[in-house]
Amino acid sequence: MSRILRLGSSPRFADVFIHGGTAFWVEVANDTTLDTDGQISQVLAQIDTTLPAIGSDRTKILQVIIHLADLSDGGTLDRLWDAWVPKGHPPVRARVQSGLGGNCRVEMVVTAAVDAESGS
Amino acid sequence: MSRILRLGSSPRFADVFIHGGTAFWVEVANDTTLDTDGQISQVLAQIDTTLPAIGSDRTKILQVIIHLADLSDGGTLDRLWDAWVPKGHPPVRARVQSGLGGNCRVEMVVTAAVDAESGS
Amino acid sequence: MSRILRLGSSPRFADVFIHGGTAFWVEVANDTTLDTDGQISQVLAQIDTTLPAIGSDRTKILQVIIHLADLSDGGTLDRLWDAWVPKGHPPVRARVQSGLGGNCRVEMVVTAAVDAESGS
Repeated sequence: MSRILRLGSSPRFADVFIHGGTAFWVEVANDTTLDTDGQISQVLAQIDTTLPAIGSDRTKILQVIIHLADLSDGGTLDRLWDAWVPKGHPPVRARVQSGLGGNCRVEMVVTAAVDAESGS
Repeated sequence: MSRILRLGSSPRFADVFIHGGTAFWVEVANDTTLDTDGQISQVLAQIDTTLPAIGSDRTKILQVIIHLADLSDGGTLDRLWDAWVPKGHPPVRARVQSGLGGNCRVEMVVTAAVDAESGS
Repeated sequence: MSRILRLGSSPRFADVFIHGGTAFWVEVANDTTLDTDGQISQVLAQIDTTLPAIGSDRTKILQVIIHLADLSDGGTLDRLWDAWVPKGHPPVRARVQSGLGGNCRVEMVVTAAVDAESGS
């Protein structure tokens, strides 16, 4: 019987959930008054903050499902993403347009390995 | 080699899939003639029915990706959700607006642990 | 400590990620000039190509989240899906309408078991 680990203090949602060597979490920009470029940059930075806190790193991200409020922001996303993703260790990625709340421009659903060596 | 377990009798989709201590399923309201409040309440009740059937409970839900037909139903969702989610044990949650079929107002993609102790 | 395995050669995304006996991947049609029927058929064929490459098969697909550019293509999807899904071994399935890039009509987010016996 493995133990599950939850991070975060909101009564509504966990920041991160870890179970069976896999971590699940969702990132939206902490500051949704930022423009699209700023929100995407902030979400990627937030992922960078979360990863070491759970014993993972960019090379162990398994999958990112990216919801954009507007697919015409795809070029901005790809430019920032390509600079961020580790060479030779990209995750599986889906990119769709969905309605997001308020001024939110991007929401990323992340799955990462926390107990594994990264291979390719 | 672990065994995978499938529940349900539809030829088109499984009701629940369990693999490696993790359960995957999707809930839409059994009665989509209900209004939004009714459909969300029913989906949460259906999750409550599924959980003990798979050896899990609300505190072991890892992640819920919530698709709303209309994000303006977010307030209704949050009110029902906050009353339902166990204190100190919320799952990771994403909330997006997507097109749903027919009169469907909400669809939840659920991931839960089935062989774990819940920690926080 | 388990090893994670990544397939694919794009710097932007992995074709498939395997971790802890579970494979994650995303399929869009290689040829998005095809019509909806053609793209759905091609995506299902691409899944059929991926499965043996990762030591899995149709009966071990755990979950498919299907994003359609237009929900009115749901009938076409269901006709092709029903002919494709193995009798008695369907995966969990969600079907939503999302904005997809370019002429893309369908995107499938797939989770499959790679080290398990299929039960039902």
